[in-house]
Amino acid sequence: MASTEGSKLWGGRFVGDTDPIMEMFNASIAYDKRMWDADIRGSKAYVKALEKAELVTTEEMENILHGMDQIHDEWSKGVFEVKPGDEDIHTANERRLKELIGEPAGKLHTGRSRNDQVVTDMRLWLRDAISTLKRNALQLITTMVERAAVEMDVLFPGYTHMQRAQPIRWSHWLLSHAVALSRDLERLHEIRRRVNVLPLGRYTHADTHTAMTELAFDDISINSMDATGQRDFVAEFLFWASLCLTHLSKMAEDLMLYSTKEFSFLVLSDAYSTGSSLMPQKKNADSLELIRSKAGRVFGRCAGFLMTLKGLPSTYNKDLQEDKEAMFDCYDTVHAVLQVTTGVLSTIKINRGVMEAALSPDMLATDLAYYLVRKGVPFREAHGISGKAVFLAESKSILLNQLTVEELRTASPLFSSDVSAVWDYSSSVEQYSAPGGTAKSSVAAQVEHLRTWLKKQAW
Amino acid sequence: MASTEGSKLWGGRFVGDTDPIMEMFNASIAYDKRMWDADIRGSKAYVKALEKAELVTTEEMENILHGMDQIHDEWSKGVFEVKPGDEDIHTANERRLKELIGEPAGKLHTGRSRNDQVVTDMRLWLRDAISTLKRNALQLITTMVERAAVEMDVLFPGYTHMQRAQPIRWSHWLLSHAVALSRDLERLHEIRRRVNVLPLGRYTHADTHTAMTELAFDDISINSMDATGQRDFVAEFLFWASLCLTHLSKMAEDLMLYSTKEFSFLVLSDAYSTGSSLMPQKKNADSLELIRSKAGRVFGRCAGFLMTLKGLPSTYNKDLQEDKEAMFDCYDTVHAVLQVTTGVLSTIKINRGVMEAALSPDMLATDLAYYLVRKGVPFREAHGISGKAVFLAESKSILLNQLTVEELRTASPLFSSDVSAVWDYSSSVEQYSAPGGTAKSSVAAQVEHLRTWLKKQAW
Amino acid sequence: MASTEGSKLWGGRFVGDTDPIMEMFNASIAYDKRMWDADIRGSKAYVKALEKAELVTTEEMENILHGMDQIHDEWSKGVFEVKPGDEDIHTANERRLKELIGEPAGKLHTGRSRNDQVVTDMRLWLRDAISTLKRNALQLITTMVERAAVEMDVLFPGYTHMQRAQPIRWSHWLLSHAVALSRDLERLHEIRRRVNVLPLGRYTHADTHTAMTELAFDDISINSMDATGQRDFVAEFLFWASLCLTHLSKMAEDLMLYSTKEFSFLVLSDAYSTGSSLMPQKKNADSLELIRSKAGRVFGRCAGFLMTLKGLPSTYNKDLQEDKEAMFDCYDTVHAVLQVTTGVLSTIKINRGVMEAALSPDMLATDLAYYLVRKGVPFREAHGISGKAVFLAESKSILLNQLTVEELRTASPLFSSDVSAVWDYSSSVEQYSAPGGTAKSSVAAQVEHLRTWLKKQAW
Amino acid sequence: MASTEGSKLWGGRFVGDTDPIMEMFNASIAYDKRMWDADIRGSKAYVKALEKAELVTTEEMENILHGMDQIHDEWSKGVFEVKPGDEDIHTANERRLKELIGEPAGKLHTGRSRNDQVVTDMRLWLRDAISTLKRNALQLITTMVERAAVEMDVLFPGYTHMQRAQPIRWSHWLLSHAVALSRDLERLHEIRRRVNVLPLGRYTHADTHTAMTELAFDDISINSMDATGQRDFVAEFLFWASLCLTHLSKMAEDLMLYSTKEFSFLVLSDAYSTGSSLMPQKKNADSLELIRSKAGRVFGRCAGFLMTLKGLPSTYNKDLQEDKEAMFDCYDTVHAVLQVTTGVLSTIKINRGVMEAALSPDMLATDLAYYLVRKGVPFREAHGISGKAVFLAESKSILLNQLTVEELRTASPLFSSDVSAVWDYSSSVEQYSAPGGTAKSSVAAQVEHLRTWLKKQAW
Repeated sequence: MASTEGSKLWGGRFVGDTDPIMEMFNASIAYDKRMWDADIRGSKAYVKALEKAELVTTEEMENILHGMDQIHDEWSKGVFEVKPGDEDIHTANERRLKELIGEPAGKLHTGRSRNDQVVTDMRLWLRDAISTLKRNALQLITTMVERAAVEMDVLFPGYTHMQRAQPIRWSHWLLSHAVALSRDLERLHEIRRRVNVLPLGRYTHADTHTAMTELAFDDISINSMDATGQRDFVAEFLFWASLCLTHLSKMAEDLMLYSTKEFSFLVLSDAYSTGSSLMPQKKNADSLELIRSKAGRVFGRCAGFLMTLKGLPSTYNKDLQEDKEAMFDCYDTVHAVLQVTTGVLSTIKINRGVMEAALSPDMLATDLAYYLVRKGVPFREAHGISGKAVFLAESKSILLNQLTVEELRTASPLFSSDVSAVWDYSSSVEQYSAPGGTAKSSVAAQVEHLRTWLKKQAW
Repeated sequence: MASTEGSKLWGGRFVGDTDPIMEMFNASIAYDKRMWDADIRGSKAYVKALEKAELVTTEEMENILHGMDQIHDEWSKGVFEVKPGDEDIHTANERRLKELIGEPAGKLHTGRSRNDQVVTDMRLWLRDAISTLKRNALQLITTMVERAAVEMDVLFPGYTHMQRAQPIRWSHWLLSHAVALSRDLERLHEIRRRVNVLPLGRYTHADTHTAMTELAFDDISINSMDATGQRDFVAEFLFWASLCLTHLSKMAEDLMLYSTKEFSFLVLSDAYSTGSSLMPQKKNADSLELIRSKAGRVFGRCAGFLMTLKGLPSTYNKDLQEDKEAMFDCYDTVHAVLQVTTGVLSTIKINRGVMEAALSPDMLATDLAYYLVRKGVPFREAHGISGKAVFLAESKSILLNQLTVEELRTASPLFSSDVSAVWDYSSSVEQYSAPGGTAKSSVAAQVEHLRTWLKKQAW
Repeated sequence: MASTEGSKLWGGRFVGDTDPIMEMFNASIAYDKRMWDADIRGSKAYVKALEKAELVTTEEMENILHGMDQIHDEWSKGVFEVKPGDEDIHTANERRLKELIGEPAGKLHTGRSRNDQVVTDMRLWLRDAISTLKRNALQLITTMVERAAVEMDVLFPGYTHMQRAQPIRWSHWLLSHAVALSRDLERLHEIRRRVNVLPLGRYTHADTHTAMTELAFDDISINSMDATGQRDFVAEFLFWASLCLTHLSKMAEDLMLYSTKEFSFLVLSDAYSTGSSLMPQKKNADSLELIRSKAGRVFGRCAGFLMTLKGLPSTYNKDLQEDKEAMFDCYDTVHAVLQVTTGVLSTIKINRGVMEAALSPDMLATDLAYYLVRKGVPFREAHGISGKAVFLAESKSILLNQLTVEELRTASPLFSSDVSAVWDYSSSVEQYSAPGGTAKSSVAAQVEHLRTWLKKQAW
Repeated sequence: MASTEGSKLWGGRFVGDTDPIMEMFNASIAYDKRMWDADIRGSKAYVKALEKAELVTTEEMENILHGMDQIHDEWSKGVFEVKPGDEDIHTANERRLKELIGEPAGKLHTGRSRNDQVVTDMRLWLRDAISTLKRNALQLITTMVERAAVEMDVLFPGYTHMQRAQPIRWSHWLLSHAVALSRDLERLHEIRRRVNVLPLGRYTHADTHTAMTELAFDDISINSMDATGQRDFVAEFLFWASLCLTHLSKMAEDLMLYSTKEFSFLVLSDAYSTGSSLMPQKKNADSLELIRSKAGRVFGRCAGFLMTLKGLPSTYNKDLQEDKEAMFDCYDTVHAVLQVTTGVLSTIKINRGVMEAALSPDMLATDLAYYLVRKGVPFREAHGISGKAVFLAESKSILLNQLTVEELRTASPLFSSDVSAVWDYSSSVEQYSAPGGTAKSSVAAQVEHLRTWLKKQAW
């Protein structure tokens, strides 16, 4: 592909040809065209800033704005034609503008390098993407919180180390994941603030205040080298996506466990399951597996980009071109995962009977220890005594609550008939009434806390 | 190593032995003992909260507090003796407390699981670590800003793609890195807020408000399962460290380039160089290489920990034990890197003469284009004309500013004798006077901006 | 710490001081001292090669060898004293040699840079480490294979997507993991070949053949710059460790599932479990969680090192110092994990009754389809018919094998009374007698295959 | 999108609808269709194996083969139409086969699950991909070796720590990178062996030997669970790509340094450079920056996939679907990078004059030490003396070779007039004639070694 004079932005100088593989390697239009709208918005604001600074006339500005609107129209209707020389979205739109309005198009880039333009477009695009993800996450959290509000009376085993630990409320489990997601949203909000900054390359003579307000940026970058050479906002976003999906991988893992035949606590909706091409009886929790897997994918993007950044010298280097595919892929992935997770959680059916039947007296061994604590035994000693009781029941192959008072007394003389009150799962969860606990009042308070928080999320 | 009754916290139940490799594998005392102070502070606050809730008597509290003070003293003096059964710092301190004050020690853990204790200690430790890193970073930024204030008149080539681009001020380069670090501090501050939360396990009956205020936490966790099972604050910190060191790897790469024989812009102080065991003439910029390399190390910790988290089920799983070594190592590394970088930047000598001699007229080709823009040529066209002039000079093997006006006119008839004003490096940098630009006023404004910002960093 | 003449290897030139933090940062003796033996072996071989090339006299060689033996003795007995200036193991041993034998010590390094020495030591050390890991892995595979040989008759559900799929033999599961580990050993063997190469820096005048044979290296490096500047063998080893532990994380995940209360297929030995500090009844599979978690840790090391390598220029840069801690940590971790896994698998108890009771007729739905295939129905159609039968049984809340022939005929007229032969789990596993299948003959063949393979592992 | 009976492979059972986002999320046809050829080859071999085992008749086989050939034709001509229900390439081809030949199509999948098919296709595809990459890498190595053969007399500075160290041959530098790539090829060959294995799921009744030989596989998998559930070959390939590109990132970094204005050793061909949209004089080494950056991208894929694998339970889980995009992307990237690198290295121009002018007498300080070693001074002492000479020259601001013999004698009385022979760069490189050294004979031997090796690469 011969690089004849004028066919590229730097056309004046080169006399050689470009290797076609190199050309392809270098081009980003295949993926960066999805920033077409951000690119047009950026250019429209920029030409207004040029006009304000009297670097273009009002008429030239009007021409450019009009041309840009036409290009916008073409993209919207899906008729914009990408041509061979269009190596990126910026070149494509500029080329088209020149076709539409002729020479004045060349004035649009006064004092603006392509790097300025790239990073402005990315910030505009990502700001919108963040808004969408915020909405998706809020919907998911709302689903969790409202479900928790409704199913608050369902008890089931709390697990640590994948072993049954103590009885908890199902809603307590739901809320534990909602709380993690609410932190993700807090972080996303912080990132948005750092995204929403007008990056100014050093060449600007345009009226920067006009550019900033036109594009609804909150701030202007402090140093021009940093402005075009840093991709912190991308790296932060990639890590944000990784941590958010790590949270969902945790929830998915729980849900997969709970929906095994062996646990049978949950039944996934058919809408989120698939069958087996071989085994007619299978119903696979593919949705949950996809959710779990995406944490890896997204973190891979983060790892790849950080590794690309490592040791780069200052300012723009072509290496930074890795930023966009990573950003797009992470957005698309999180966008889909959040929606699928909302779908899964709205449609999953719980088997309350099975969940409650999974509770067993040994899960009250800690309560048995607290019984002794209430009688003045230091907790560590009480824990040891309760452990002996557990061991005794196991030796006899009976349940812990089937030990007689006499048998319990072999472990401690403090046991008496009132110990029978311990063997009640509802009382057990109710005794943890501190903030964040499993008592109904505590769980209800969590629901209220999150409802209030949800209402405040107007950014 | 036989696990006789009582020798472990869960002593009541187990009758078998533990594999010694497993024992070693399981133990964390080798590294978590550095949280001894946080552990003692946590326990002291907790016993006060127990007393407030009347779960221990005032006398028992006094005993425990006194014992804890003694343990503090032992650690401070380096005489605390870790014993074989002490698998972690919590067990060690508890074991010692029991030796010192007897049975009442067992009351300290009423309603507190080891997981609660671990995560409280980590939060206290990390809060202090963050304060130290903040101080280190502020010192580094201050060094950069004050150096930039002093050396503002030094010009040298700005590079993009490692190729000379346009003249800039040396201070502009310094500030570009300072600005990146100021964002790191912003992020660190946000993380601190999420670190500084009292994590409450579900078992608490103690007075949580007392615990929170005693430990100067800002908030209490919302959900007990999330509180003990999440390690977001660690993951965030590891990524923070990675991004911060990626910034410093970038600066180190620049400095290495600038201190090669070929560039010779800078001379590293002997205090931050080493020699070669083989080549007597070598002076290696080891400090810069170490700085550059640590971005990899630290990100490896982040990657490892995220991978460990991926797909874990809810609540505590032993896998989380990977959190502490990663956290300590990242802290130690960033702590050292920030200080070494401060040392490097305070002592590095610049070769002003060499820096300025590296400027060449072709770096003013953009200014040549702007000369035409000022005469009404659209920027893109002007860029093409200037490119032709560059090509012409190259063909003639002369410098760009050695082209006669007649020669320039072959590229555009708009050139006239006033073009000679273009060939001045100082004027060149001065023309970029927008915010964040290279004009003296712009750079001075950056210095002022950062000085003001530094004063506000009182968190 | 003043760098007075002679106190460092490059002592002749420097007049400034070194920043103590920089000094600490730069030093590697804290961890590289574990290569003391490799360092001594390397030096002993090197002096022989110098003598062969007549660069030292026989007497000087004898002196040096004798001195080295003394140093070896000191390290062995734990009395070698590391002194303040000993920044790495090479400096320490050289310093000590000079104390012991005086000036001739200075001849040992003729034509050998420290980088040559570092990389030789690392290769020797890693070669030994690989041998140990090989033994550990062989022991683990042997345990798995022999256990599979003994428990071949135990059937239990095979799972895909964590859902019960078809009946398999317990031994088939065991062998699936053994086979993965046998590939790990193959890979380790390949790495060993690339480790076992004498790296020659360019300065050598010594007799390289002597050095190679003395150290039992298989080969000599081809290019001196590559020899000292590449760390492929470390990167390969780190990734090897990551993939190997990813395999074990998979097995651990299965075992954790199988040892939940809900599955109850397995009981972990007390030697590999721990209790809870809070809940007396808990028995946690900590060993399995540690195994699972270490895949993350080790891969983090790999990721960190690759990131450090990325974009480094040729030859030695101080950044490479990250190689050793990563290598040691991965070795230590895999070394421990392999042994603990062997312990877990030798002591775990299976609940044959529970495993077999977990089989259910719906897991034979594929067999039901094959019944139809044998009657000429294309598989896809047969799969559909069997699916309808499953749905029918579910609608009636009965087991699949409780459908009457008449009911089955509503799905296909080809069903007749001989369908009852389908409902036999043993027949089901027996029908898969192809290589790698679940028939007893196939599993026995796998056992024999691996036993033969194990015998051949003499490298 | 309603899932009506028969519209999906598991059609018989499901009655609910599938969430369209879930559908999209689940589908892989968008990327796995590039395995269309492998899928057809796999199915053709499989039906032959079924026929051999008398599970299909010869006529049915002929029908299926014929249908498959038609499908092949459609794909080749770009007219194959992917329809809405085609969630992956396997479903698409099977659906089409049924359209073409009717019911007998359903027999093709007897005893073959989709997972078997997926993994067979991937192995066939990757085997071909590896062959292509091998050819690309051989071409690159050949370019390097032949260029080294031609430019063997060009001397320039060898660098360590980015500081001039000692004179070397330009060819020595070239070969250091060729040698690294030859190791990459060795590793690729080893991976190919593990890729080229027929993965047998457990259900097979077909004649496996026929399947293996038809597809030119070297071996058959040992255990069916491992066969379908492991993705080692993908993980290995991803890491292979990462290490290979890390090598190229190192070479690119060197080349970027060498082609800065300050070094000016090299001029990149215009075919591999680009200009600046802003600065008319810029010529950027974009090709080298892209090469450097891709190490990050590819390692990100590796990291992401390993993280996805971590902690997965045995056998197929949907998470494994992450394998294909990672594999394709790494292949495409390495494929392009190898070709671009070959282009860069074939066209780059060296500035021999500048390279040789960059040599300076201080780079012979080690040779000065060896001068003393030849006079009997132990190396370490000689190193110290030479260091003093360097310091003396620096103090006097003269070059090292401008010190008079008298001045040198202040450092050591052993210096005499014959020291002048030291100041010759050619002699300097010639003295390192050990294997892998810089002497012409050593470099020529490296060239011959690699030429011989290249001839042997026939796998």
